[in-house]
Amino acid sequence: MQIMRIVFPVARSWLGTRIVPWVFAHMSFALPISRLRETERLLAFYHPRPVYPVHVLIVPKKTIPSLMALSRNDADLLVEIYETVHSLVAELALEEKGYRLIANGGPYQEVAQLHFHLISETKE
Amino acid sequence: MQIMRIVFPVARSWLGTRIVPWVFAHMSFALPISRLRETERLLAFYHPRPVYPVHVLIVPKKTIPSLMALSRNDADLLVEIYETVHSLVAELALEEKGYRLIANGGPYQEVAQLHFHLISETKE
Repeated sequence: MQIMRIVFPVARSWLGTRIVPWVFAHMSFALPISRLRETERLLAFYHPRPVYPVHVLIVPKKTIPSLMALSRNDADLLVEIYETVHSLVAELALEEKGYRLIANGGPYQEVAQLHFHLISETKE
Repeated sequence: MQIMRIVFPVARSWLGTRIVPWVFAHMSFALPISRLRETERLLAFYHPRPVYPVHVLIVPKKTIPSLMALSRNDADLLVEIYETVHSLVAELALEEKGYRLIANGGPYQEVAQLHFHLISETKE
């Protein structure tokens, strides 16, 4: 994935943090990612630079800069995110391995589009 | 908090993982915890044995054994959990410090009642 050497530094730059949300909202078809789920509302895919043996990202397509920007109107999206987690936990056998669902905020959040990490530290 | 020396080993035992959800549903008033929020649906409180400089637990009162047991009917609860996160992030100045919202599952989950950790690794 040579392209990721370019994509990641850009995504973390000032400009990148503004472009990435727009890409998810309008050009997600063009993202060079290994898709696990795609619906009208969200995308789930393997992290291109995984930090854990299992490292999946779940990203809403609608522009939502952070956890703090979620509102009551996003109830259906929240339900769909959790349904996606359910189906990924089953597919990837995470109930046996163990898993964490993580959302980072403030300076811990690297890209200004809400995203959830579904991870497992357990290989087998 | 002497009582926590007893409460924690019990909570993690086979019996404890069955009793804790019942206590949250029916006897939360008796929990020896430092409450941050309490509504009809949930409790938020400082972790009695914090692993991070900021370590808050958000726990639904309704018995929900894990993330996998959430359903479409819990949409209002999900919204309320995220609204609670918003207000705690503001109150504890976590937008400046950085924060993570974490839900553990499978063997990573120590007590059989759904709970979210709202944590910051940053002291000041």
